[in-house]
Amino acid sequence: MLEMFFAPRSVAIVGAGREPGKLGHDVLNNLLQYGYKGQVYPINPKADEILGLKSYPSVLDVPGPVDLAVIVVPARFVPDVIQQCGEKGVKGAVIISAGFKEAGLEGVKLERQVVAIAKQYGVRIVGPNCLGIIDTVQPMDVSFAVGIPPRGNIAFMSQSGALCTAILDWALANNIGFSYFVSLGNKSDVDEVDLMEAWDANPNAKVMIAYVEGLRDGRRFMDVARRVTRRTPVIAVKSGNTEAGSRAVSSHTGSLAGSNRAYDAAFRQTGVLRAASIQELFDYAIAFAYQPVLRGNRIAIVTNAGGPAIMATDALENSGLKLAPLSKETVEHLQAQLPPAANTYNPIDVLGDARADRYAVGIDTALKDPNVDGLIVILTPQVMTQIEETAQEIARLSRLYDKPVVGCFMGEAKVSAGIEILTRERVPNYPFPERAAAALRAMYDYRLWLERPAPELKQFNVDRERVRATFARVREDGRNTLGDAEARNIAEAYGLRVPKSKLATTPEEAVQFAEEIGYPVVMKIASPDILHKSDIGGIKVGVTGAGNVRDAFDLLVYRAQRFMPDAQIWGVQVQEMVTGAKEIIIGMNRDPQFGPMIMFGLGGIYVEVLKDVTFRIAPVTAQEAREMVGEIRSHHLLEGVRGERAADIDAIVDCILRISQLVTDFPEIVELDINPLLVREAGGGAIAVDMRLVLSS
Amino acid sequence: MLEMFFAPRSVAIVGAGREPGKLGHDVLNNLLQYGYKGQVYPINPKADEILGLKSYPSVLDVPGPVDLAVIVVPARFVPDVIQQCGEKGVKGAVIISAGFKEAGLEGVKLERQVVAIAKQYGVRIVGPNCLGIIDTVQPMDVSFAVGIPPRGNIAFMSQSGALCTAILDWALANNIGFSYFVSLGNKSDVDEVDLMEAWDANPNAKVMIAYVEGLRDGRRFMDVARRVTRRTPVIAVKSGNTEAGSRAVSSHTGSLAGSNRAYDAAFRQTGVLRAASIQELFDYAIAFAYQPVLRGNRIAIVTNAGGPAIMATDALENSGLKLAPLSKETVEHLQAQLPPAANTYNPIDVLGDARADRYAVGIDTALKDPNVDGLIVILTPQVMTQIEETAQEIARLSRLYDKPVVGCFMGEAKVSAGIEILTRERVPNYPFPERAAAALRAMYDYRLWLERPAPELKQFNVDRERVRATFARVREDGRNTLGDAEARNIAEAYGLRVPKSKLATTPEEAVQFAEEIGYPVVMKIASPDILHKSDIGGIKVGVTGAGNVRDAFDLLVYRAQRFMPDAQIWGVQVQEMVTGAKEIIIGMNRDPQFGPMIMFGLGGIYVEVLKDVTFRIAPVTAQEAREMVGEIRSHHLLEGVRGERAADIDAIVDCILRISQLVTDFPEIVELDINPLLVREAGGGAIAVDMRLVLSS
Repeated sequence: MLEMFFAPRSVAIVGAGREPGKLGHDVLNNLLQYGYKGQVYPINPKADEILGLKSYPSVLDVPGPVDLAVIVVPARFVPDVIQQCGEKGVKGAVIISAGFKEAGLEGVKLERQVVAIAKQYGVRIVGPNCLGIIDTVQPMDVSFAVGIPPRGNIAFMSQSGALCTAILDWALANNIGFSYFVSLGNKSDVDEVDLMEAWDANPNAKVMIAYVEGLRDGRRFMDVARRVTRRTPVIAVKSGNTEAGSRAVSSHTGSLAGSNRAYDAAFRQTGVLRAASIQELFDYAIAFAYQPVLRGNRIAIVTNAGGPAIMATDALENSGLKLAPLSKETVEHLQAQLPPAANTYNPIDVLGDARADRYAVGIDTALKDPNVDGLIVILTPQVMTQIEETAQEIARLSRLYDKPVVGCFMGEAKVSAGIEILTRERVPNYPFPERAAAALRAMYDYRLWLERPAPELKQFNVDRERVRATFARVREDGRNTLGDAEARNIAEAYGLRVPKSKLATTPEEAVQFAEEIGYPVVMKIASPDILHKSDIGGIKVGVTGAGNVRDAFDLLVYRAQRFMPDAQIWGVQVQEMVTGAKEIIIGMNRDPQFGPMIMFGLGGIYVEVLKDVTFRIAPVTAQEAREMVGEIRSHHLLEGVRGERAADIDAIVDCILRISQLVTDFPEIVELDINPLLVREAGGGAIAVDMRLVLSS
Repeated sequence: MLEMFFAPRSVAIVGAGREPGKLGHDVLNNLLQYGYKGQVYPINPKADEILGLKSYPSVLDVPGPVDLAVIVVPARFVPDVIQQCGEKGVKGAVIISAGFKEAGLEGVKLERQVVAIAKQYGVRIVGPNCLGIIDTVQPMDVSFAVGIPPRGNIAFMSQSGALCTAILDWALANNIGFSYFVSLGNKSDVDEVDLMEAWDANPNAKVMIAYVEGLRDGRRFMDVARRVTRRTPVIAVKSGNTEAGSRAVSSHTGSLAGSNRAYDAAFRQTGVLRAASIQELFDYAIAFAYQPVLRGNRIAIVTNAGGPAIMATDALENSGLKLAPLSKETVEHLQAQLPPAANTYNPIDVLGDARADRYAVGIDTALKDPNVDGLIVILTPQVMTQIEETAQEIARLSRLYDKPVVGCFMGEAKVSAGIEILTRERVPNYPFPERAAAALRAMYDYRLWLERPAPELKQFNVDRERVRATFARVREDGRNTLGDAEARNIAEAYGLRVPKSKLATTPEEAVQFAEEIGYPVVMKIASPDILHKSDIGGIKVGVTGAGNVRDAFDLLVYRAQRFMPDAQIWGVQVQEMVTGAKEIIIGMNRDPQFGPMIMFGLGGIYVEVLKDVTFRIAPVTAQEAREMVGEIRSHHLLEGVRGERAADIDAIVDCILRISQLVTDFPEIVELDINPLLVREAGGGAIAVDMRLVLSS
């Protein structure tokens, strides 16, 4: 897909020129210099010939077909150029020119105009305001970058063009190979999602990596990413994590949500690996690009130095990987082959005077062991160390086994010769053990993603009509917030348990209802005019026995009347009292990028003070709901501590899934908090005691 | 100090030889090659002359005095050599030879023997089993390392010799300068603490950095480090963070403590900056070595690229630093000087086509602003970028202001020329914005350390004799665990409030005591044989009124007799019931390296489930105690949330300090838990309800 960018038969450079250092020259020159095999047409009304090629006044004057136009003329001319491209039947345009959305209001208008014309003719656009595209597979370089990276199988996209220049410079020095290198610029048309789709199942894109500042369409991203990551690892850096914070939020969920949480959830739910920095992005990328998949979390270390092996061990264990327990055969073999002072347990220390042959024994034996899933080879440049020979042995042995091997050659002046060999032979090298461990951890995360069962989206039998009718009544009322009874209605329509509750208008009725519900009960004054019932003593909890119910009824009515003589008093709500349960909060907030985001946490101080919550984008799968419950810091409290029995986690999961379905079915719900959801012991179910709901206004 | 290692007038190489690649040759050769100006004596009984110098059979045969001996002979000969050194009056020995403590039991013995002989003669030892010492100040290289680092002002020590080789190799490639470079090996004598003392107030050691696997004497380390860090930043990597976990622990504190927590506490209390990896160690070191101190947390960014500036902003804010709010004058000046599209707020974006002059405007204006404490200059290698000229401008301007400036030249092939200039001109460069931000954060941490007021060690007026007498009675009893009343005794002797409590032997006495104490009361069965009182229903809380007290007395005694007919029953403890208070835990555990370590946390699930606790090595200062209270995650709960009033934090601090004094005064206390300490609202005090104490056996 997007073959107009990745397989054009002809390219026109609109704004081509002769002066080195100017875009019009540099882009044309790159295209000619780096081996593009199709037709090239310089477009410039003031020239007949540029860099030895015949030049045309406009694309319309080109005799043959033009698949791709690369545009470097000033912004104000771009609409006309796109118009001509459309008329000519050009299929794609890379707009390198700046002066659009990034340059203020006028630029925004200009960009809209360009996009509208392109749409009309079906011209796809990369940019504007970008560095261009480098494709080492065709090959084709339509960028103004200096130098082309080596061919490889990393496909890279970046929203920042400047970052591209830095990464190219780094890649050239370190011989890191790319297949595709795309600067997306303002993303007026083609974006990350289009590229993911285009590169899907392309063997040249063994790993896709992205620098992202913001996504245009979060939902589409999720649909595509979820599919693509099943075949190809996708790693992204998302920058810009400080919150806009402008929108006032009224719910707990809203105050705890935010764009960074949403990206975290979206990446996690789609198997996209999130790197915290560009350094991490490439540390991970080369591991995936060069090595086979990691099948488990048991890592062996071969080293000629004790200290760095300790650091590697710390890093592995901190990251949740394990030091592989070597088999008896492995240990015996190592004991037979290595000097007596060597450590033959993991980390395997081949000692400071190890030459390449001794390293080879350690590496080969470790990789042979079925208890070992992956290997880190640490090398420090000591007197006897054979840096290049050892690198060659690592490369040779890593090819014999279907397990990832990463190097950790520490140092720089002397070890660089070894690192060059490793890179050439596709063994990633990391200068510090922590970074090697982190790369293996990323591989393991991806492995866990691949091993996940197919997502299971439960559809409950619910009463949509009842919700629709309730919302309609609220709207008619000119409100966008739901009252108690209305929220209760919604909860019941979606199969959530709510406390039994009845409105009593007389003390006798209250007694009757209390006996139906079962003691103890909670009694609350029912009045549309009294919002903060507890402030006026309008709630009594734990009321037991007919006499007490009667007393409470009178007391509540008396207090309400005294507090607000004009208040309309409907009576007293008699409600089931839920005891011995844990307070949970389940909420929803609508993220501008990704839509409904479900929050889960323990109620009360855990949410308010410790902010111990977790998020997922809805619709949430059964597995994701269960993960949410397990991943808060305080999850042990639900699993039974201090002699308590475990809480009804199935009931929590059920509730998360029903809320997920509700907010997916009704996009007009913009905020929702169930606080508290009271969860009983396993088997006892969960009861939504209070639900707040806000509709879009 | 340690002038025998850092200013010897003469050096003997014991085991000197002629064969390149052998230690005896390489060490002598390094010494001769790298400019040592004192006398050099090769020692080798089988040679008359080595590398052009007269050789002697033993140090005893050397005609003049010998200050330093460097020993490379096989381990078994080392005791004799040290004996001769002692007789000769040699002051220091660097034992490079391996085959000692690291090589098993025989080696341990040999090392002890060597140390004993050296002590007898007052010979100081570096090593054995080390790479040696490189001192670029004298200069003197008595190591078998290949190459000598440039002269600089970083003083480095490492417990791992292999790591030294890697760091040297890296330093050579990156032109990182060292003053002292010491491989400590087995640390049979000279250790990190000795070097810190020796380098204290030495201008050549502007920053001291260390790779540590374990310290020999934690207390001495703390004393010295606390003093040295007042003048010189000390940065350490501590590896080997997995716990031995062999010692059974019975207390909460014990189960949450551990060596890693102890090192964290010790480093924090002494102002030693802890780096998480060697990469961080040097990232921080070059910032301190090259730049002036950072005086505040307001950082400006000058950049030619938007994306990396966003990443830098994220990193600064995540690390607790701030984007400096530029003054009105600064913004106006930038607006006047930079192109209209430039961002003149922080981050200052001088745009992709910025040449060195435009960078200079941004940098100079930012550094002039009194709201700016430090500066990051980001450069990506774009078409118009003047890499070297910009580096020169950064260097020039950074010298004009007393504020740290760090570079973030991203890339490698092209930017390396700029990075070389920066390094030469002593501006640290980081390849990624996150690492630049982290280095500034380390500088800020050090600044905060310097700004701390002098530590205040409170000494309370306590009754040591009473504690001594109680411990004596416990010992006489053949126990090492204290009973309730004994622990209460200890608490009172150190001025801790305990609940009013009396042992009643009859129901009538119980009523009398309850009325003295005030209702409600807690009643507990008192029996030395019943440990888990609550398990048998042996505790009643909230007992009010004479009748209920009488009933409870009989009930508790009945239950105890039924549960354990043979139990000795002393009666019923009638105890003050503390209500409306927060549960706190304060504990102590003795760390093998650092001694008594005080723990603080909120009681109950906060400790048991969330493990939300913090540690300090005792004796704890008033300021440290207050920091402990403020740094747990749940500290907001003590400051008043959900309409509650704040807890009595002064009382908690007081209690921490008294416990600190107690465990310092009595080293025989090996474990202590106050759980719970009940803390009332501010002004209400704190009551130690239950204290467990274990003495050394």
